[in-house]
Amino acid sequence: MDKGKSIVLIGAGNLASHLGPALCRSGYKFVQVVSRTIETSTLLAQKLGAIPETSFTNITADADFYLICVSDSQIEMVVRNLNPQNKFLIHTSGSTDMNIFSSFCKRYGVLYPLQTFSKNKEMDLAGVPFFTEASSPKELDSIDRIANSVSEIVQHGSSELRLYLHVCAVFTCSFTNQMYRIAEEICREKEIPFEYLHPLILETAVKAGRISPAMAQTGPVSRNDQLIMKKHIHLLEDHPEFRKIYTFVAASILKMNGHSTEFLNAQPGKDE
Amino acid sequence: MDKGKSIVLIGAGNLASHLGPALCRSGYKFVQVVSRTIETSTLLAQKLGAIPETSFTNITADADFYLICVSDSQIEMVVRNLNPQNKFLIHTSGSTDMNIFSSFCKRYGVLYPLQTFSKNKEMDLAGVPFFTEASSPKELDSIDRIANSVSEIVQHGSSELRLYLHVCAVFTCSFTNQMYRIAEEICREKEIPFEYLHPLILETAVKAGRISPAMAQTGPVSRNDQLIMKKHIHLLEDHPEFRKIYTFVAASILKMNGHSTEFLNAQPGKDE
Repeated sequence: MDKGKSIVLIGAGNLASHLGPALCRSGYKFVQVVSRTIETSTLLAQKLGAIPETSFTNITADADFYLICVSDSQIEMVVRNLNPQNKFLIHTSGSTDMNIFSSFCKRYGVLYPLQTFSKNKEMDLAGVPFFTEASSPKELDSIDRIANSVSEIVQHGSSELRLYLHVCAVFTCSFTNQMYRIAEEICREKEIPFEYLHPLILETAVKAGRISPAMAQTGPVSRNDQLIMKKHIHLLEDHPEFRKIYTFVAASILKMNGHSTEFLNAQPGKDE
Repeated sequence: MDKGKSIVLIGAGNLASHLGPALCRSGYKFVQVVSRTIETSTLLAQKLGAIPETSFTNITADADFYLICVSDSQIEMVVRNLNPQNKFLIHTSGSTDMNIFSSFCKRYGVLYPLQTFSKNKEMDLAGVPFFTEASSPKELDSIDRIANSVSEIVQHGSSELRLYLHVCAVFTCSFTNQMYRIAEEICREKEIPFEYLHPLILETAVKAGRISPAMAQTGPVSRNDQLIMKKHIHLLEDHPEFRKIYTFVAASILKMNGHSTEFLNAQPGKDE
């Protein structure tokens, strides 16, 4: 059992604010929360019974784990500031190789939750897949125990696997959310409650878990209904950006379905 | 009460195979199911206790409603073949104007369910928003009764509103599903179970119903993490199509967030 082991949490953003409290409930002891602004570190530290810090100078040297929950671009800076040599460092990034640690310390690893976290949206981590990787089997075992304490789905995965998972996450989460956002913007302009689209959004997501997305495609684009697509492209004339996305994603669907995309080239918006 | 009123169903596709049985359970009586192939019309007709038909010559003249559930591009052909003059015609399309009926008959309208339907995926229509429109208040009342018999969300909506809703549906369903499909393809190639992405897909959809998609955006693109985006674009080198979509949708997110997209122009794939 690793319950009772101590963690210094670096970062107080979307992920830290979900992972911290979940690990705390599992019995891990948070000693410090490090964040650039005192407000955010204090807010999270209070929830975890930890001490808030804004600089790396006061960080304790003897915590069991240093859990890095910062943006990918900040990880190396954090590691350099941590005086890492004898510490056990863990990052939580999809696209950062585990070897980012290798020239700094001997005990390190990765704990990557494949999920989208927003501070103002609750989340049960039990169903979130965690991908783990570490510098040695002993360290992997420690990280697996951390992951298993909050999630039922823990898998070992290389840095390369994680990078592919992260690209897939960008498509299925960030890009999907951008499609929602475009629809939300159209609804706002036309004074249509965006709520009407929720059942469709939810069903599309649920369906992806039941039947393959390759089989689930419906609507005028998958039927190659050019008249409807032309109507839609015309309707988006005040939004060249939305038009461009419509044209490109529609072309992608048509090509995957073996249809010609030639008629789309004649549509306005293609070369705007 | 309109229960017991008779319906001729034209079409036996995804929508007809969900709407027919639901209306049947609500007490509407289906007399005929018309479809181009005898197999599909027979299959659905049996479920509805109706007679299957493959041509328009045998269609009864005295049903209360003629419910048209065919592709948009087929609607006008269907109307011409229906000998429509004294019939009450209803179509179910998002992007087809109600006036498609106006030169053919006097009693007509639209019953548009804003949802994605697949034959092999069950669906409770109670939570599906239905948008109704008709040639007169009396006909609208009849169509509202049909909609209310299966759904709790029935709204009057013009043909223009429906067209905008349909464009939004293409973005939030068809285009979203295409993002899933691209991820599924990457997973397949890398032998990663697509199932790992289900919790993320579902949470992204659920979140859109709780907080605005404009606020819900997470990930490297919304953080403008150019290093990660470059890694991802590099990773997609064997898939110029996926790269193109990545670049365009990422640019759309960056622009909406007020970031420059200049670095994307220097990436491979932009002009492939």
